[in-house]
Amino acid sequence: MADEAKAKIPERSKKEKKEKKEKPAQEPKAKSAPKKKIEGAALIGIDVAKDDDLAEWYQQVLTKGKMIDFYDVSGCYILLPASYSIWEIIKSWFDAKIQTIGVKNCYFPIFISQDNLQKEKDHIEGFAAEVAWVTKGGKSDLEKPVAVRPTSETAMYGYYAKSIQSHRDLPLKLNQWNNVVRWEFKHPMPFIRSREFLWQEGHTAHLTLEEAGKEVLQILDWYTGIYEELLAVPVVKGRKTEAEKFPGAEYTTTIEGFIASTGRGIQAGTSHCLGQHFSKMYGITVEDPSTREGGEKKPPVFVQQNSWGLTTRSIGVMILTHGDNKGLVIPPRVADIQVVIVPVGVTAKTTDEDKEKLYGGINKAYEALQKGSAWDLPLRIELDNREGYSPGWKFNDWELKGVPLRLEIGPKDLEKGVATFSRRDVEGKDTLPLESIATAVPELLLKIQSDLFNRASEAYASHRKIIREWDDFVPTLNNKNVCLIRHCLGEKCEDEIKAMSARTTAGDSAAEDARAPSMGAKSLCIPFEQPDGLVEGDKCTNPNCKDVAKKWVMFGRSY
Amino acid sequence: MADEAKAKIPERSKKEKKEKKEKPAQEPKAKSAPKKKIEGAALIGIDVAKDDDLAEWYQQVLTKGKMIDFYDVSGCYILLPASYSIWEIIKSWFDAKIQTIGVKNCYFPIFISQDNLQKEKDHIEGFAAEVAWVTKGGKSDLEKPVAVRPTSETAMYGYYAKSIQSHRDLPLKLNQWNNVVRWEFKHPMPFIRSREFLWQEGHTAHLTLEEAGKEVLQILDWYTGIYEELLAVPVVKGRKTEAEKFPGAEYTTTIEGFIASTGRGIQAGTSHCLGQHFSKMYGITVEDPSTREGGEKKPPVFVQQNSWGLTTRSIGVMILTHGDNKGLVIPPRVADIQVVIVPVGVTAKTTDEDKEKLYGGINKAYEALQKGSAWDLPLRIELDNREGYSPGWKFNDWELKGVPLRLEIGPKDLEKGVATFSRRDVEGKDTLPLESIATAVPELLLKIQSDLFNRASEAYASHRKIIREWDDFVPTLNNKNVCLIRHCLGEKCEDEIKAMSARTTAGDSAAEDARAPSMGAKSLCIPFEQPDGLVEGDKCTNPNCKDVAKKWVMFGRSY
Repeated sequence: MADEAKAKIPERSKKEKKEKKEKPAQEPKAKSAPKKKIEGAALIGIDVAKDDDLAEWYQQVLTKGKMIDFYDVSGCYILLPASYSIWEIIKSWFDAKIQTIGVKNCYFPIFISQDNLQKEKDHIEGFAAEVAWVTKGGKSDLEKPVAVRPTSETAMYGYYAKSIQSHRDLPLKLNQWNNVVRWEFKHPMPFIRSREFLWQEGHTAHLTLEEAGKEVLQILDWYTGIYEELLAVPVVKGRKTEAEKFPGAEYTTTIEGFIASTGRGIQAGTSHCLGQHFSKMYGITVEDPSTREGGEKKPPVFVQQNSWGLTTRSIGVMILTHGDNKGLVIPPRVADIQVVIVPVGVTAKTTDEDKEKLYGGINKAYEALQKGSAWDLPLRIELDNREGYSPGWKFNDWELKGVPLRLEIGPKDLEKGVATFSRRDVEGKDTLPLESIATAVPELLLKIQSDLFNRASEAYASHRKIIREWDDFVPTLNNKNVCLIRHCLGEKCEDEIKAMSARTTAGDSAAEDARAPSMGAKSLCIPFEQPDGLVEGDKCTNPNCKDVAKKWVMFGRSY
Repeated sequence: MADEAKAKIPERSKKEKKEKKEKPAQEPKAKSAPKKKIEGAALIGIDVAKDDDLAEWYQQVLTKGKMIDFYDVSGCYILLPASYSIWEIIKSWFDAKIQTIGVKNCYFPIFISQDNLQKEKDHIEGFAAEVAWVTKGGKSDLEKPVAVRPTSETAMYGYYAKSIQSHRDLPLKLNQWNNVVRWEFKHPMPFIRSREFLWQEGHTAHLTLEEAGKEVLQILDWYTGIYEELLAVPVVKGRKTEAEKFPGAEYTTTIEGFIASTGRGIQAGTSHCLGQHFSKMYGITVEDPSTREGGEKKPPVFVQQNSWGLTTRSIGVMILTHGDNKGLVIPPRVADIQVVIVPVGVTAKTTDEDKEKLYGGINKAYEALQKGSAWDLPLRIELDNREGYSPGWKFNDWELKGVPLRLEIGPKDLEKGVATFSRRDVEGKDTLPLESIATAVPELLLKIQSDLFNRASEAYASHRKIIREWDDFVPTLNNKNVCLIRHCLGEKCEDEIKAMSARTTAGDSAAEDARAPSMGAKSLCIPFEQPDGLVEGDKCTNPNCKDVAKKWVMFGRSY
């Protein structure tokens, strides 16, 4: 399946290109009757279970949790503050990292001339079907239409050729945070597959392949950090097979996520070594170092290039991973509101004096919390003093929005010198002493963060099966797993595996995944961490393949 | 003159709309023979004087100073790290300010459906001539073309109508940092007038006009802060006349800058109170507060709205204001590199031991500086150890790039325990003691910042003339001034003044401003700070106008 929301052009593999079909985009389904009402769900809450209808659940969680709102251009979504703030945290974290290796931010135009876009045949071939074209300015037809960038290689590398004149201009490391457009005709899905999305795209040029390769892995580590440390989402690091790498790249490294509800893999971010493929097409050269050092004059050398991208898809993966039947579950490290304080225990009989006492105590706790910090940043706290809403309504509201930690403070809590707390990620309540609130709350947030990651990590690990016999392959996929198999790394063999694993009849899991097209498994990556048990001479797991296995390769149905 | 790079739609006044003409965009002039070579200019430097040919100077300063590079789509420019970093500093400063009043960042789609854009007739009328339309996705014609946002009112206010249901949803305060496109057909100018530009657009909704009005002025103060405190560029605060305000706004407040080299005013940022104009069109209502409080049931009330925007034009104004014949002059507060250290005094005769001593001393100074700070941020320092370039070449290079402070450290300086320094904004050199370098350098930076502002402020003040007699008006404009005149505030009178002040023959200043079209003066603003000397019964300065003067109004030729 093509992945228009994937991080970069290199993510569109040769295979995907072949498979692209033009279907009209389907609008998100209008609210249909939910399959099953959740027992006791509040009116404001989610009224369908995540396991019953993931698509409907996702739509409700996003809109009721105020992450996005729908929009009247198909495939485009409004990113509300609750989701945009997560993107800002990712941005700020990643910017600090890439600055340490000398990457500078910049901005290239959104429009690409037809001539320039078409200069590189492979490139335009990969995107031609989904480029949005501006053909009119006001009422006049443009003399030459301009493309809205689907990615910026063709916008940027002309500048690279011009500005890199000498080894002194290397390395050149630029990054952009911008919007790109891929006019897909497939079923759109907020964050996961949208016609416009936000991303960063890094483009660097180096003198040596070794230096470029070091950076590729450094960036992949930071992408892993965004998922695992910030979003509490586990990923598997690896390299793409030849069939799945970006055509023209020297090699593609990737992090692969997993959506447990559907058992499908999802590409989470890619960091590519482009080698000299683009520099040769754009003529990005420097003098050969040996010539410079007084040696025999040699022809100029083409620079070694990398490109790497990560998109707002990451937010969708986070939501799909952690969300539950009550709504969003936001990991504390990226939550716009980490802690909400809800006053409780006020009744019609509560005297003004008692109220004053209560609010005095609550304000004291609020002030103490403002001195607390987590992940070297001040705590982000909301005091919910809204009138006219019951505490129960407020609980539901904040649960829907995924706030990681709720503190309930009532007269009885104050008497005991405690706050009652409820973690969003687990059931039940407990108390913490008010006097140590500024340290107890950050500790809880750290615990929630690591628990979220550990649970997701266990779920991924338990659905990542090592398969030694072909006969186990499709049934294992059907049970919502991804599979590691011994593989020959052959392109044709991958095609066969895909065809052989495509669903022909509705299986056990058809109900849960009804909207997903019947799809075969593709290779997700060659994990860097290889299981044991591959010995020389082992055959490829595909029974129709005669080749020997070279690597354990992770296969799966995917987004 | 229409100002496509202006902050928001409201900046396009009714008058401007009438004046819009479709001319083919002119590409930036290819490097022509400079009019006059600057004496002693280095080869890498600017080879035309700012006063001789501002357009050519501007182009050279921008490209040689690495602020922008040209691009193969007309009216679009590459924002290189040197300029983008200034935008990031503005962004971070302004974000911190607006967060204090509860504004949240978000992201709305770049595409606007034709239906939605055309819903509001006045709005589309203001933009129809310059909207870029996407009509094709891949090879297919779109069923309905979509507009690339020229501004986001029509993208956002549908959501406002939907999400504002009760007074509890007010105020709603959203802001976006994004790119917008206005497909102008006039002569483009980097930063000042480009087809795509970056900006922030704030859109807020309030219950009362009073509350909205308070915010309008608060934002205008912060816009003033961006110009005066960060960019060291003086502005005049005021209100637009009825003729120049956004049609439909309750009122428009503005900050007006000044380009001394051409004597033209330039709109620098605008903050509008939209009143109920948009809320009535979009049906953004809440229950009447008196109904809620148990009073007689009244119809719902329309919310009061504001919108405010500031663009990358600000960077262009800064460059035009401070740049000189050596290149860029960047105010320290926004400079990506505030201080550069250049080792000097190394000759062919310098022994390795002496070199080691020198670089040891320089590294010590560099480390000491890294502990220094200015404007509550660590100093941004570059140590220029590049080999193969002479100190003189490096001096020119950093001057071209506008680095505010250069430290030269050689063996003799070390002996004396000093660093020689050269301020970018003034001629000459001086020394500072190395032992107090971490405090002396920040002090110098603060001094440079305030000197830059004060000089620009004096230049603006001395070119802002109070004119009491009509006969002085046009000659004063021709001498590169803006003029404050007693004015009736009548729209027809403004038209007359414009016509009467349009140049018909080349005046004294034609050489400097040769590329500017002959233009009349328009009203820039009604300054909040009014000169004395307007008494009741005073006539409007326009000799053909019979009305009495109501205000001092600032008129000028403008960008």
